[in-house]
Amino acid sequence: MEEQLSASKRLAPIFRRYSAAVTGFRHYWYPVAFSREVGKQPLARTICGEKIALFRDGGRVYALHDRCPHRGVPLSMGRKEFPGTISCMYHGWTYDLPSGQLVAVITDGPDSPICGKANVAVPTYPAEERAGLIWVYVGDPPAPPVEVDVPAELLRPDTVLEGVSAVRTGNWRYAMENGCDEGHAKYQHRYALWYFFRENAAWAKDVRLFPSEDGVWLERVRGEVRYSDIYGRLGRWPRRGPRFWQSRNRGTTTMSLRLPCIMRQQQRGWTEYQIYVPWDETHYLCFLLATKWTTGLDALLFRARYHTYIRRLKHEAFYAEDQLAIDLMDTPPEQLYRPDVAITAWRRFCEERARQSPADALAAPATPAAPAAPAAQAPSGAAGR
Amino acid sequence: MEEQLSASKRLAPIFRRYSAAVTGFRHYWYPVAFSREVGKQPLARTICGEKIALFRDGGRVYALHDRCPHRGVPLSMGRKEFPGTISCMYHGWTYDLPSGQLVAVITDGPDSPICGKANVAVPTYPAEERAGLIWVYVGDPPAPPVEVDVPAELLRPDTVLEGVSAVRTGNWRYAMENGCDEGHAKYQHRYALWYFFRENAAWAKDVRLFPSEDGVWLERVRGEVRYSDIYGRLGRWPRRGPRFWQSRNRGTTTMSLRLPCIMRQQQRGWTEYQIYVPWDETHYLCFLLATKWTTGLDALLFRARYHTYIRRLKHEAFYAEDQLAIDLMDTPPEQLYRPDVAITAWRRFCEERARQSPADALAAPATPAAPAAPAAQAPSGAAGR
Amino acid sequence: MEEQLSASKRLAPIFRRYSAAVTGFRHYWYPVAFSREVGKQPLARTICGEKIALFRDGGRVYALHDRCPHRGVPLSMGRKEFPGTISCMYHGWTYDLPSGQLVAVITDGPDSPICGKANVAVPTYPAEERAGLIWVYVGDPPAPPVEVDVPAELLRPDTVLEGVSAVRTGNWRYAMENGCDEGHAKYQHRYALWYFFRENAAWAKDVRLFPSEDGVWLERVRGEVRYSDIYGRLGRWPRRGPRFWQSRNRGTTTMSLRLPCIMRQQQRGWTEYQIYVPWDETHYLCFLLATKWTTGLDALLFRARYHTYIRRLKHEAFYAEDQLAIDLMDTPPEQLYRPDVAITAWRRFCEERARQSPADALAAPATPAAPAAPAAQAPSGAAGR
Repeated sequence: MEEQLSASKRLAPIFRRYSAAVTGFRHYWYPVAFSREVGKQPLARTICGEKIALFRDGGRVYALHDRCPHRGVPLSMGRKEFPGTISCMYHGWTYDLPSGQLVAVITDGPDSPICGKANVAVPTYPAEERAGLIWVYVGDPPAPPVEVDVPAELLRPDTVLEGVSAVRTGNWRYAMENGCDEGHAKYQHRYALWYFFRENAAWAKDVRLFPSEDGVWLERVRGEVRYSDIYGRLGRWPRRGPRFWQSRNRGTTTMSLRLPCIMRQQQRGWTEYQIYVPWDETHYLCFLLATKWTTGLDALLFRARYHTYIRRLKHEAFYAEDQLAIDLMDTPPEQLYRPDVAITAWRRFCEERARQSPADALAAPATPAAPAAPAAQAPSGAAGR
Repeated sequence: MEEQLSASKRLAPIFRRYSAAVTGFRHYWYPVAFSREVGKQPLARTICGEKIALFRDGGRVYALHDRCPHRGVPLSMGRKEFPGTISCMYHGWTYDLPSGQLVAVITDGPDSPICGKANVAVPTYPAEERAGLIWVYVGDPPAPPVEVDVPAELLRPDTVLEGVSAVRTGNWRYAMENGCDEGHAKYQHRYALWYFFRENAAWAKDVRLFPSEDGVWLERVRGEVRYSDIYGRLGRWPRRGPRFWQSRNRGTTTMSLRLPCIMRQQQRGWTEYQIYVPWDETHYLCFLLATKWTTGLDALLFRARYHTYIRRLKHEAFYAEDQLAIDLMDTPPEQLYRPDVAITAWRRFCEERARQSPADALAAPATPAAPAAPAAQAPSGAAGR
Repeated sequence: MEEQLSASKRLAPIFRRYSAAVTGFRHYWYPVAFSREVGKQPLARTICGEKIALFRDGGRVYALHDRCPHRGVPLSMGRKEFPGTISCMYHGWTYDLPSGQLVAVITDGPDSPICGKANVAVPTYPAEERAGLIWVYVGDPPAPPVEVDVPAELLRPDTVLEGVSAVRTGNWRYAMENGCDEGHAKYQHRYALWYFFRENAAWAKDVRLFPSEDGVWLERVRGEVRYSDIYGRLGRWPRRGPRFWQSRNRGTTTMSLRLPCIMRQQQRGWTEYQIYVPWDETHYLCFLLATKWTTGLDALLFRARYHTYIRRLKHEAFYAEDQLAIDLMDTPPEQLYRPDVAITAWRRFCEERARQSPADALAAPATPAAPAAPAAQAPSGAAGR
C-alpha cells in the first residue's frame, strides 16, 4: 500500500519549487548560532547543505567555507596564529578572515609561491549579528541588508531574547509544517504538562491564512474555537471539562510564518519564535526563542520566568512531542484535511514568494496579493479532496 | 574469488520463485505475536515487509496497516479514545478497528468532511487467535480459514504451548535453511550444553525427504546413523565415545517442514516448532515453541520443565549458535553436499507448492505427489555435483 | 563549491594506476600480523579487500581464503580437529592447511563424495614469518621470495623490533600520503608532547626526492631548514624560540618510501617504520614499528625505552594526530603546494614502478632512473600550479 503515491504525484507539479527545496531556499539570511556560541573557538555549521565555519576576531564574526582547498580539512579545526586570520590545523595554510585570501603558508616559508593564487582562496559568507543571533547569508551575491530577513520587531533595542537551539533529525520542511500545523496541538500536545495548566481546544472553525500588508508574513486566524463537542454516535470529547486550575484562554492566538523558515506565535505576554534552519537533507537546526520588549527589572523577571518553566515545559518537554512527530512522519503520500489549510497556504506562499535571485530580496514584496488569496481557502488540489 | 557465482547462476533459473521470495510468500496466515503480548498497548509488527499494528478491543484482536494516511504516522503509537476505535497520536484521526474506516477526526469537529472518504480508510488484515498465538493473513483476499495454516495438532484443546519469540537479523530463508539443515547439528552444536547430556551422531546415511500424504508437510527420515567413524588417514572422530551420563537416543528423530516457514521437530516426549516469519529483507521474527498434549498436573510439570531447562538450554544457548551461523552465512555462491538434500528438497517444495493466489489455499493439496519425489534424491542441479 | 573538481580531473589521467589502487597494489608480500598474534586461535584479516584466515600448525603459519565454499562461513571461526587441518565450525568441512584441499567432511562420513572435488578447495596464500611479522603474498602466482619485499635491514639477526598495530579508518593512500607529507609535522604536530622535548622546524627549503641506487626506495632529503621566519607583514613565527630543555636536531632526518606501502624514518639512534596495509576501501591496517640493530643488555634497554615513552608519545599520542588528519582529509579536489613534492613523487613512483604482474618482482629494478628524476622537481601537473 506504500505505492499509493497519487497524492504526491499531484503535489509535485503544483508545488514544484517547494518540493525541490530539500536543503532550503537560497538567497536568504539564516540564523546559524547564538552570538554567545562563537568566542575563541570556531564553530562548525552546515546551512542549506553548505559547510560553514564561524570565527570571531576583533569583535566581529566571520563565516568561511569550512574546507581548506589544500587537502580538504575543515578550517573550523584551525588556530588563530596571526590577528585577523585562521590557520588550517594540518599544514598552517593561513587565510585572511574578511576576504578568504591565502596570506601565508607557515610550512612553506615567507616566499611560498602559492599565496594569493585565486584557486586557493576560501569562499566567504556575509555574516552579521542581530538580536543576539549570528545571521549568515546563503545565496548568490550581492547579499541584501540583513534587516531584510531579521523580523523587524527583534531589532528594537528593548528586545529581550532567550532560547535554545539544537541540530535535530528530520528535513526542515517536516519541522516547518509541523510548526504551522494548527490541528496537532489540540490532540497530540493535550497530555503535555504545558497544557495541564491551560485549557486546550478540541477543534477550530474557519482557519484562514492571508499575507500581511507588507507581504512578508503569512498570518493565521481562526473563527470559532470549540473546547468540547459531540462526535456523532461516538459521543462527547473530551469527556471531562476543564479543571478549576486551568487558565482559560478564549482569545485567538496569532500564528505567523515567513520565509525562509520562521514561525512566530503570540503567547500570553511574550512572543515565541520557532526557526527551522535547513542543515542537510535529513537534519535541521532548530531555534526555539522567547522574546519580550522590556527592560530593567521586568527583563530580569522575564529571563527568570523563561529558565524556570518556559524553557523546560515548552521548549524541552513540549517540543520533544513535536520532534517525535517529525521523526515519525512519513510522507508522501499524504491525505490532507480541513485544518491543513495552514500547510497548503505555507507551501503556496513559498511557491509564489521564495526568492529566485538576490534581486528578489529588494523587489516590491506585496505584488502577489491577489494570487495569495486562495491560500485562505480550504486546501483543494494538493489536499486531494 | 567472490566472483565464483556459477552456483547461484545455476540456482536462480531452477528455484525462481524461492529466489524471489525475499520477504516471504504471500497468501498465508503467519503467527505474529503471542496472544499475551497484545493487551492495552498496541503492538507494531513488520510481516513480509508490510507494517502492521495489532490492537485488542472487546476481547478480539484487530490488525491494521500501521500508517495513518494523513501524515504517515504509525497508528500503533495511537490511543483508544472511543470503544472499537484507534485515534492517531498526531491529530486524532479516529479509525474503526474492524473496518479501518475513518469515523471521526477529533481536531476537525463532528462535521469533518473527510470522514468516510475511501482514500483515507486504513487497510485491515484478517487476524485470529489460535494456540496462544495471534495469526495474521498477508496476501490478497479472500483469506482462507486460519485453520488451513495452523498445524492441526496445535488446535487440540489439550495442547500446552510454551515458547519465546524475538526479531532477529538475517533473511528468513537463511533461518529456515539452517533449521532444516540436517548436518550442522552434529558438528556445530556438539559443544552446546544441550548435547552434554545427550549422545550426538557423527553423520547419517540416506537422508530422504518426501511430502506427507496430505501434501502439507515435507518430512525427513534418515537411514543408518553413525555415532563415530574412521575418516581415512585422518583417523577416528569423535576420538572419545559417549560419556556414561549421556542419554542414548538411537531412534530416528523426525523433522518436518511446511509452508510458509514452519519447522517441526519431534523431541523426547514433546514437540518443538521453529517458525521463521519474514520481517523484512534482513530480519525475521523467530518463534521457538515447545508443545505437548497434556492437562492438569502434567501440564504444569511440562511448563516447569520448559522454563527450568528447555528454554535456557535449547531456545537460548543452543539457538544462539544457530543465530551465529545465520549471521555468518554468506551465499551465493554455495557448494552443497549430500546431507543438503534437505535444503534442496525444501526449495523444491516451495517452488512447486507455494501459493500463487488465495485460491491455492483451498485447492486439492496433494496433486504434485509425483513431482515432489525427486526431492528425496540427493541434490543434483543446484548442488553442483 | 564542492564541484571544483578540476584538480582531480587533472589527477586521474596522470596517475591512473595510483587512482585505481583503491584497495592497494597486487603482487606484493604484505605484513598482516605480528607473529605473536597467531597461536592456537586463528586470526581473520582483510588484505587488499581479500578475506584471509591465518592458522598456526606445527610451528608454521598458513593463510587461506576466509570462506568455506559450502555456505560461506568464515574458516577463521573453525577448529583444529585433526593435525594439519582446519574444520569449518558449521558442518565440519575439513581442509588441509598447506593445500586448501577438502580432505574430510565430518558430517557426511568417510565416503563423502564431495572430498577432493576442485570446486570445493579453498584458495591458499603464500605466508612467511620474517622479523617478527607474518607476511602474506597477495597477487597472482608465482609468488616471488618474501625477501624481495621485506626491507633487507630487517632480516639481520640482530634486529630488535617493537611496535603496535591496529585496523584504522581511512583509505590506505590517505595514510601513506600523510606519512610521507613533509609539511604537516612542522605545524600539526608542533603541540604534541613528542615535540615538547624537541625543537621543531618552521619550514624546509628544497625538499627533493630520488630513487635509491637499487630502485627500491624513494628517498627524501631537504636543503636548508628554517626554525623561525618572518612572514611578511604578519610577522615572525613561531614567536618564541626553542626552550632550554628542547634537544636541537639540526641534522637532516632521512625519510624513505617503498612499495607497496612502507615508510621508513631515521630517528635518533633507532629506525621507525610505518606500514599502511590496505584493508578495504575505507580501512587500513597500520603497523608502527621501532627497530634497532643491537643485542644483549642494549636490546633490553631499547625495548624498555620503547614501552616507556616511544610507544606512548610517538605511536599513540602523536599518531592520534595523524589519524585525525586522515579522518578529516577530504580530497579530491586538492591544491598541492611546494612541500607536497613528496606526495607527487610518491604517486609517480607508484605509477612507474608498481608491479603489474609477479614477473615484475624479479625484473631489474633500476630501469626508470631517468623518468623518476622529475619527482625531485616541484609538483607540476597534478599540483595545479
